[in-house]
Amino acid sequence: MKKIESVKNTQVKQWKKLQTKKERDKTNTFLIEGFHLVEEAIAYPDVVAEIIISENVKIPSEWDLANINVTIVTEEIIKEISETETSQGIAAVCKQVSKPDLKLENSRLLLIDAVQDPGNLGTMIRTAEAAGVDAIIVGDGTVDTYNSKVIRSTQGAVFHLPIIKGNLIDWVHNLKEEGVPVYGTALLNAKPYQEVQNQGAFALIVGNEGNGVSKELLSLTTQNLYIPIYGKSESLNVAIAAAILIYHLR
Amino acid sequence: MKKIESVKNTQVKQWKKLQTKKERDKTNTFLIEGFHLVEEAIAYPDVVAEIIISENVKIPSEWDLANINVTIVTEEIIKEISETETSQGIAAVCKQVSKPDLKLENSRLLLIDAVQDPGNLGTMIRTAEAAGVDAIIVGDGTVDTYNSKVIRSTQGAVFHLPIIKGNLIDWVHNLKEEGVPVYGTALLNAKPYQEVQNQGAFALIVGNEGNGVSKELLSLTTQNLYIPIYGKSESLNVAIAAAILIYHLR
Repeated sequence: MKKIESVKNTQVKQWKKLQTKKERDKTNTFLIEGFHLVEEAIAYPDVVAEIIISENVKIPSEWDLANINVTIVTEEIIKEISETETSQGIAAVCKQVSKPDLKLENSRLLLIDAVQDPGNLGTMIRTAEAAGVDAIIVGDGTVDTYNSKVIRSTQGAVFHLPIIKGNLIDWVHNLKEEGVPVYGTALLNAKPYQEVQNQGAFALIVGNEGNGVSKELLSLTTQNLYIPIYGKSESLNVAIAAAILIYHLR
Repeated sequence: MKKIESVKNTQVKQWKKLQTKKERDKTNTFLIEGFHLVEEAIAYPDVVAEIIISENVKIPSEWDLANINVTIVTEEIIKEISETETSQGIAAVCKQVSKPDLKLENSRLLLIDAVQDPGNLGTMIRTAEAAGVDAIIVGDGTVDTYNSKVIRSTQGAVFHLPIIKGNLIDWVHNLKEEGVPVYGTALLNAKPYQEVQNQGAFALIVGNEGNGVSKELLSLTTQNLYIPIYGKSESLNVAIAAAILIYHLR
């Protein structure tokens, strides 16, 4: 096992750079923190490139790290590369998963159009995975999936299903060609969701916190849905709306 | 209109103290920030005790402030009493609403057992209000409803329905006596929620992020429910679970 003791070490600087989207995109990797997330990640072959651990903490003996590099560092270094206030003393560099072959005709998909808040995106990934969604398609203008706040909010679900960057307009065209019903979420020209009974495959599009799903996408869907508001609130949080609709559609 | 220019003014110190639960409990008031929340609050008679506004910003001309005190302060003072990073230059002192007379037999209620995260509590208040829930009963061990992060996450819904502190065990007994079905959320000895078709009144209990609803409460309910997990995640976020169940039950 390698040991690094200086925060000025070039490797430490490299890890810290992974806090930026630019560096994550360039290297196709991202950094995760904490025992729970690292444990979720090592359950998958070929996801974790490297574990970084403080000299003050111990790796659980049941972890199988046969093919994973481990670097021991000082507490100061772990704090330097950490984005949380209280680091657990463990982090890992993970590889961004490449696009899998999805069979569209049987899929349940969540399409995400320009969602800005990392907590909302992470919570939607967690909920969609729990609900048995097969993949998440992330459109332009959405917060980076590999942002550390997104990863934390997924509670590890980010490792359990494919998350694919794509052009949502192309996806909607392809899904409809394969006979998959595509549902938008909208307040106008939409049906109350309770009136739609879905069988099998579906794609659900959710949109930006302020502006909703783009008009162009809404014009392409099979059907747009809304969730009735019975109180005085103007709207629901996007992650809440996504959860109600996904569990209804499946 | 009064004007205050020194951050050392005792009134400023008093406002700042409202960042603590102790002071909020003692004075039965709380502080809100931002144009949206203040606008929601002034729509109700007898909620806003006082508006505090920076000399740099203007009160919208359509606001009716006939019976509300307004104090103009410096930008430095607004920043001093603000808990957000970028203050909009407006805040208000509001009165905590007292317990209303609820007719239990027709009510839809959300009971909250020891939820810790302010964002989760605020989002649940927002969702419940949107779903037409009549009141929220907050049990011991739950984060303070008048915490500024809770208030922000409610998006103003905190003003639209009664939020009552209470002993949940007493509430469950009273609700059952009035014939209101009480549903707990649990992973063991529970039914999939889709199997329960509710008519009219209900009370739903959601619990702590780590430990769920207390065993004692779960033993008193009419029926405990769970949301099936079809993926590999261990659980759903509590605000997500509450949303799925409330919209299903109503």
